[in-house]
Amino acid sequence: MLNLLKPIEWKNNRLILLDQTLLPCRIKYLSLRTSAQVWEAIKVLRVRGAPAIGVAAAFGMYLGLQNCKAKMSWNAFRRAAQQQGDYLNSSRPTAVNLRWAVERQLALIDRMREQSVPRILAALLKEARRIIVEDMEVCKAIGRHGLPLLRQGCAVLTHCNAGGLATTRYGTALAPVYAAVEKGRRISVYSDETRPLLQGSRLTACELKRAGVPVTVICDNMAATVMAQGKIDVVIVGADRIVANGDFANKIGTYGLAILAREHGIPFYCAAPASTVDLRLKHGSQIPIEERKPEEITHGFGRQTAPTGVNVFNPAFDVTPHRYVSGFITEKGILKPPFAKSLKACCSPII
Amino acid sequence: MLNLLKPIEWKNNRLILLDQTLLPCRIKYLSLRTSAQVWEAIKVLRVRGAPAIGVAAAFGMYLGLQNCKAKMSWNAFRRAAQQQGDYLNSSRPTAVNLRWAVERQLALIDRMREQSVPRILAALLKEARRIIVEDMEVCKAIGRHGLPLLRQGCAVLTHCNAGGLATTRYGTALAPVYAAVEKGRRISVYSDETRPLLQGSRLTACELKRAGVPVTVICDNMAATVMAQGKIDVVIVGADRIVANGDFANKIGTYGLAILAREHGIPFYCAAPASTVDLRLKHGSQIPIEERKPEEITHGFGRQTAPTGVNVFNPAFDVTPHRYVSGFITEKGILKPPFAKSLKACCSPII
Repeated sequence: MLNLLKPIEWKNNRLILLDQTLLPCRIKYLSLRTSAQVWEAIKVLRVRGAPAIGVAAAFGMYLGLQNCKAKMSWNAFRRAAQQQGDYLNSSRPTAVNLRWAVERQLALIDRMREQSVPRILAALLKEARRIIVEDMEVCKAIGRHGLPLLRQGCAVLTHCNAGGLATTRYGTALAPVYAAVEKGRRISVYSDETRPLLQGSRLTACELKRAGVPVTVICDNMAATVMAQGKIDVVIVGADRIVANGDFANKIGTYGLAILAREHGIPFYCAAPASTVDLRLKHGSQIPIEERKPEEITHGFGRQTAPTGVNVFNPAFDVTPHRYVSGFITEKGILKPPFAKSLKACCSPII
Repeated sequence: MLNLLKPIEWKNNRLILLDQTLLPCRIKYLSLRTSAQVWEAIKVLRVRGAPAIGVAAAFGMYLGLQNCKAKMSWNAFRRAAQQQGDYLNSSRPTAVNLRWAVERQLALIDRMREQSVPRILAALLKEARRIIVEDMEVCKAIGRHGLPLLRQGCAVLTHCNAGGLATTRYGTALAPVYAAVEKGRRISVYSDETRPLLQGSRLTACELKRAGVPVTVICDNMAATVMAQGKIDVVIVGADRIVANGDFANKIGTYGLAILAREHGIPFYCAAPASTVDLRLKHGSQIPIEERKPEEITHGFGRQTAPTGVNVFNPAFDVTPHRYVSGFITEKGILKPPFAKSLKACCSPII
């Protein structure tokens, strides 16, 4: 049994969140009871990772509506729900799972037209809890499908954190690693530290080390060197949004990594649940990219490391064109090019 | 007249060094009077940058020998000088300019066989001061030769600091930028912050901002994105050692940047003095690569950012194969492929 941190759970009518801004030095759980607290936790990255943000938002919808009066009309409740959804969506723009979870709750309300507020609230809570269970199953299935990529003794390079901490458990990019380790395979991981917020060294290294998986931290700019030294067998990253043609947004640095992998003849996979796919967008250039504040770069480590007032460019994500992607590891199997076709089939309800 | 910091000078029988570990927040000059102080300053990167290290080492040789007795035999003095040289060389293994400066001082002693110690000491000091003057001239010539690469309005991406702070003035990679700005051209610079020690954000951004050159700091993993957005016209970096076939060592991250530049069709230049060329080595794989302590990555700037005891790989340099290099900007002109030929000609004393 792997020793994995539990980043998110529902207990005593509270959303219990591991505050990931304090890792790796402190393990502290927050107990949230309002949607404003959920919004703040998403905004400042106490909870992060596309799937985990989706789960938090699903509970955020419930928390934001739970005080609606029992006698409120369905129409008024639906309007309040829309407001809550828009509010939660405003916390971060890039990951589509946030929107996906909000829309799933709104669709549920639409299906319960004219039913009482207490009944709808109970259903919203049940739906959010179902999303947790589904997420765990999805992550396990991603691990199962990714397993053949990881033979005995191989080394994986990953970027940012698409591990258990980015989901409810097991992770996406790390799910195949955990699945292989559970099968008794010796797998090692190189983790890009992932500037500016260091999710790779703070979170990925932390959860892998706890789980007993050998992990080596490198700076982002060392990836080309470890590839050239023949140390990497496969690159696996997560995704915040995958669009119809297979272009995908993920943590800044992913795009460069994809180029380096191809230059060194190393397979490059993206692991993500089907809920990350957004077929409404045709090309990666249409994905909104969040820019974050300069201080994340200039005052990253509690100390000023750039001259006062200097210009800074701080996009939180980049877009990797589909031509660099060997495949998408999803809960429904590994999708291969042409992605326009395989992604459409993956998202079709009949499959 | 550009407002440039003076990183190194000789005054009142002391080597005056700007302590670059304190930038960008504090400008403090150190006054060194022993070779042990010079060794420490090189080791912990108070002075860094291949050309500046060479200058410091040349003075370090003088400081380490200045207390030799006037009546000492030439042979004993030569042995003491060899010891001093070996000691200074042990501070950092990769940059060849350090060795070049030590060997230049040893060769001077060899030319003064049987002369008195006070005479040799005076000559060593004169030679070190000559190296400062030469370095300034070399940097200016690099700027002059690189000038045609930078047309009005263009943007340069650079990595680490190969600016005035890495030399005695003007820099290598930044020399063409300063030359173009002095000609009245509008040039902007993107500076990779350069993990782990952030020479890009701490030093390059600092010196460019003081000089009035528009500079934007990015994390290393954002370079691919700014290239894809068409923001970069040319990449210019420095070098710590260039070998016979044109492979070269420079700050970790340079190799990946070279791959990204080629993928985006952006010219990639390396600017360095001829003293950086080491024709004794045939291939880049023969260059010794310094590995530094894990804490530079795990405890970057006063705060722990990786789990205690995690594995870390921390090479300070990487090797860029010559096939990615558009040209070497030297004080003798821009060297083009085939580099085996152009580097040999550049280092030949008859040119």
